[in-house]
Order: sequence, then C-alpha cells, then structure tokens
Amino acid sequence: MAEVITISDAQDPRIAAFSAIRERDLVGREGRFIAEGTVVLRMLLAAHHANAGIRAEALLLLENRVAGLAPLLEEWPDDLPVYVASAAVLDAIAGFHLHRGVLALGSRLTAPCASDLIAGLPEKALVLVGCGISNHDNVGSMFRNAAGFSADAVLLDETSCDPLYRKALRVSVGSVLSVPYAREQSGIALLSALDAAGFMVAALTPSGQTEIGAIASGLKDRQRLALVVGTEGEGLPPEVLARFMTVRIAQSSRLDSLNLGTASGIALHCAALALGKLG
Amino acid sequence: MAEVITISDAQDPRIAAFSAIRERDLVGREGRFIAEGTVVLRMLLAAHHANAGIRAEALLLLENRVAGLAPLLEEWPDDLPVYVASAAVLDAIAGFHLHRGVLALGSRLTAPCASDLIAGLPEKALVLVGCGISNHDNVGSMFRNAAGFSADAVLLDETSCDPLYRKALRVSVGSVLSVPYAREQSGIALLSALDAAGFMVAALTPSGQTEIGAIASGLKDRQRLALVVGTEGEGLPPEVLARFMTVRIAQSSRLDSLNLGTASGIALHCAALALGKLG
Repeated sequence: MAEVITISDAQDPRIAAFSAIRERDLVGREGRFIAEGTVVLRMLLAAHHANAGIRAEALLLLENRVAGLAPLLEEWPDDLPVYVASAAVLDAIAGFHLHRGVLALGSRLTAPCASDLIAGLPEKALVLVGCGISNHDNVGSMFRNAAGFSADAVLLDETSCDPLYRKALRVSVGSVLSVPYAREQSGIALLSALDAAGFMVAALTPSGQTEIGAIASGLKDRQRLALVVGTEGEGLPPEVLARFMTVRIAQSSRLDSLNLGTASGIALHCAALALGKLG
Repeated sequence: MAEVITISDAQDPRIAAFSAIRERDLVGREGRFIAEGTVVLRMLLAAHHANAGIRAEALLLLENRVAGLAPLLEEWPDDLPVYVASAAVLDAIAGFHLHRGVLALGSRLTAPCASDLIAGLPEKALVLVGCGISNHDNVGSMFRNAAGFSADAVLLDETSCDPLYRKALRVSVGSVLSVPYAREQSGIALLSALDAAGFMVAALTPSGQTEIGAIASGLKDRQRLALVVGTEGEGLPPEVLARFMTVRIAQSSRLDSLNLGTASGIALHCAALALGKLG
C-alpha cells in the first residue's frame, strides 16, 4: 500500500491539482480530471489497471475516511501519492465543503477518435449519440444509462461538454470511465460515419415518426442501432431530422418534453431489448 | 392587473413568507409553498383558476422581470399582491442568489385523502406509488414523469417527502400542481386499497419476475395498474415484494441500478402504452 502523506497547508504545491476544483477548471489541464467519491474512485482504479487509456495520478482523502477505505487503498498503485488532510484543510483546498471526502486526480492519455471507436464496435452494436449536450448532468445521465443498458459506445459532437467534468463524471456514477466514447466533429459527420458502418440511425424527437417501443420492427434484420439525442430545449438540428429516421417517445400532450436523462433511458431500454443486448 | 408594490427593505413584513426559503422551511407553514420560475408560476395560476384546492397568495419578482412577464401578470388575480424588488433586496430576502427572479407563494387548502382520490379514479387508470421517497429531486421527477405519461394520480406513503417542497415542485416542472396526489398512510395500506379497487399492483425491483416491457401480458383484461417504486438504495419493503407482482427493468449486470427518475419514466412509458393511455 502506498505511503500516506499528511497535508497541513492548503497551499502545499503537492496538491495544487486539487485546488479550487470548479467545473470550469477541471478539464483542459493536460487531460486531467477529478473523480469524486468512492464509487467513481473504484471505476478510476478499474480503468487504470485495465490500461484503457486512463491513469490514476493522486488521491486526496479526508483523514477520517482513510481507515474505512483500507480495502480500496490496497488497490491503489504503490508508486502514486495518497494525500490526507483535515476537513478544514480539505475544504480550503477544494474551495467548497466536500462532504464525501474522497478526491482522485486522473488523466486521459489520448483523446479517443470516433472513427477508430466505430471501427472497433461489435457486429451487434448499440451507440448513443449526443448533439449539443452542454449540460453536465445530462451528459452524466447519458453515460449512466448507456452503461445500464449495455450500449457499446457514446459519441458526442464537438459542441457537447466534456464528460470528464467533475459533475458529469459524478452523475454518471463513473460510467464515463467504463463506456467507450469520443467527442469530436459535428453531429451530422458522426451520424454519416455510423450510417456508413451499417447502423440504423434513429433520431429522438417529440415529432418522431415511429414510437420508440416499435423500434424492433424498424430494425428488421439489422443488428446495429445508433440513438441520437439533442438538447432539451432546441432538440436536434434540422439536417439530422431531415436525413435520418425519427423516433418519438409517446407521451401526454400536457407536457413539453421529458428530462433528457429519462428520455435517453427510455430509448436505450427499448433499443437494448430490441437488439437482444440484455441477456 | 394587480398593482405592483416595490419592496426596498428585505425585512419588510409584507414579504416575510418569502424570507430565507430553504428546503426545510417551505412546507408546514399552514400548507404554504413556494413556486419558483415562470413555468411553475403558470401551473400555479392554472390550479388557482381551476379551484382545485390550490390558491395563489402573493408574487415576488425581480424588478427587471416585470415587463417580460406582463402577459402572465394579466392572469394574476387583481386582489393579490405583486411585490417587486431589486436583485440585491431579492437575494437578501431569499437568502441565496435567485437567478430566475420569480417567486410565488401558494397554499394548499386541504390535504388530499388517498381513499377519496382512489374512489374518484377513472375506469382505465394508471397510478404511480412511491414508498419512502425522501429525496426531493426523485419526488419531483416522479411527478414530471407521471404528468408526461398521463398517470391519473401519484400516491406517496407517509415517509415520503412532501412534493410541495420548493425543489421537488421545481424539478416536477410544476406537475405537483396538476397531477392529483395524496401522501399518507403506509405503502402496504395504500397498495391494499388499490388492490381492493381492482388495480393490478406491480412493484418495481431489480429482481422482479416480469420485464416491464411485457407488462401488457400481465394486465390481461384489466384496465387499472399501479406501479410502485421505492428508494434507490434500499428498494421496496419485503412485505410489498412478497404480496404483489414484481416487475424489473432489464439492464446490464454491470451497474447497480438506474436513477429513480429514469426508472419511473421507463416503467410509466411501458405501462401507459400497455393501457392505451397515450392516444
């Protein structure tokens, strides 16, 4: 087990990467990100040991969490630092009250490339695509649902937010570290690539032609399906809706639309059942 | 249109009901609640004018929102006060920064009674039941989904939180004010009453016997369905699972469970389709 280093000064340069972790500061520091809480830490360790392009770098714990985390700390690489601080010092480092008391620093070694990811998908494949998803909670929910319904990948267009933002990672319950994804290009470019790879592309919109529960009949003998979601407000770009099959979630006329997390969950559940991906 | 009263002192007794609106303070003040934002305000006005046991009482607006809200203010009852304040005064009243700048005070005249509510349900009926749902976001999501999928009522056991809490009301997008509900008794008492009223009771649990997508076959010729959800952590009480039909949402074995909002949305979508409630 790694040696535990006590930090008594919030300005200590050894924990500078943990300082003032606000959403806007989290990504872009050379691919680094902050994992918060034990569940996300466990996912980070799994990704680290799987050599999946994600590395753990350092751990910062509230002093009274160390004993309870002993089993997890056994898995922490011996050569990586484990810092420990009192509640006062920890809150001063983070810049807000951290009631979970578990922060890990991780890094993504290479930005995944959409074309490589698509090329590596299995014959029977389910992909969730997001266009313009700037809300961190919504991106996190998409990943949680993608993991929950055995999606093979998430593709985000370049205007969507980075899923490694602390809040997106936390809402995903760490699924951002387990579900393969790429974030680049325009939505239409990503969908064209999926179309060329034999995917049925189904764009989710309140005015969609096919009810999502009937997606199985649309698939016919195809085994590859890409579900596309847009923002809660503006929805998907007109060029996406014009070019691809559209699907809707039947709902009451009383309400505008569902929350994006719920909508993506409903669509993935139907799609995963139709593809026979849930055992 | 009601006269606009400018408030320049955060301690002004006329706006005392809006002061320090923290979650814990919101309900229990003689059935009063706080509606936040224009969408929820619109729902409050609709409920007020429908004489549905909900009354609007007062409005407190950020001064620069008044002009833009003129059409809504036309619907505001002439005899009820509209207070206006600067951002600094408004934030001092609320106790935090209110970027929406729209707060309304409402009241519930009588607490709805579960037996009356059940007795008044239509022949073809869908009810969502929550047991032990203490999280405000989750209760709000349940109502948003209930409205989205044309559920006829929400029943909450006495250990669930009050859906009129500000955050639950906001997350519900005001649906707490439009979907009939009651909150009382134990879960098993509510479910027994629904069972006696001819409902098929389906309890959602990861170990459920029937996949939710197959709920239609379980219904046979019945037209009344109650879906029951528990907390994300502990799930439903054993006596509920032992006595009633159990349903599951098929999902990957990789993840513990779905977010409650997503799970209730998936279940309601399947149930509403099976009952033919979505047109």
